[in-house]
Amino acid sequence: MDIHKANSRPTTFAGSEYFTGKVMMDPIVTAPEPARVRALRVSFSPGARTNWHTHPLGQTLYVISGVGRIQKQGETIQEILPGDTIWIEPGEKHWHGAAPDHAMSHIAIQEELEGKHADWLEQVTDDEYQK
Amino acid sequence: MDIHKANSRPTTFAGSEYFTGKVMMDPIVTAPEPARVRALRVSFSPGARTNWHTHPLGQTLYVISGVGRIQKQGETIQEILPGDTIWIEPGEKHWHGAAPDHAMSHIAIQEELEGKHADWLEQVTDDEYQK
Repeated sequence: MDIHKANSRPTTFAGSEYFTGKVMMDPIVTAPEPARVRALRVSFSPGARTNWHTHPLGQTLYVISGVGRIQKQGETIQEILPGDTIWIEPGEKHWHGAAPDHAMSHIAIQEELEGKHADWLEQVTDDEYQK
Repeated sequence: MDIHKANSRPTTFAGSEYFTGKVMMDPIVTAPEPARVRALRVSFSPGARTNWHTHPLGQTLYVISGVGRIQKQGETIQEILPGDTIWIEPGEKHWHGAAPDHAMSHIAIQEELEGKHADWLEQVTDDEYQK
């Protein structure tokens, strides 16, 4: 059993390769094999968001604070609020992030397949984000 | 993509078969195959706790409110607080729950193997809990 106290692992900032705006990450778990789940807390500043991306085994988001946005390719942007859970199917192209005037923090849970848990794609443009 | 709003799925009460005291559960995800992750929010009243149990592929707990306790068999009881993450290895016999005078809520994340994500054992006696 490993207990990681809340103050024991520093927050990191997500790189601009896969994100737009200021995004912070706090680790929850990277389970060793044969388990394959990965979870982290992700905190988006207002206007910040992921690139478009997919997950080989899907992803679960659980919103814990703020006001957020999520979009599946080809559908309209949806607002997400604390307590909301989102299940994203394997291979489903999507993005998520904060609302333009609100921060948003969620827990992200995904499983790793063949060494990766996400396939990163192009940026979400300001035009796409503002729609 | 499935969005479950915070008010769309009712809270359930855990049965006394595997828990002592009042324990409430809110669903987060039961991912369909080939994914195998299950997650839920579990809220323990003061003094409430799980039975002793193990997980075939381990378990991650992420404390979101209150003051809790966790114990691995053969070790001393540890206090857990909001923001703490606990990784429990596959097969590790343990229990978790609230402190005697405080409620505690955590997110529990585990993977299912051959149709189950936990093996439930005997109750945690008051003597064991108070140590």
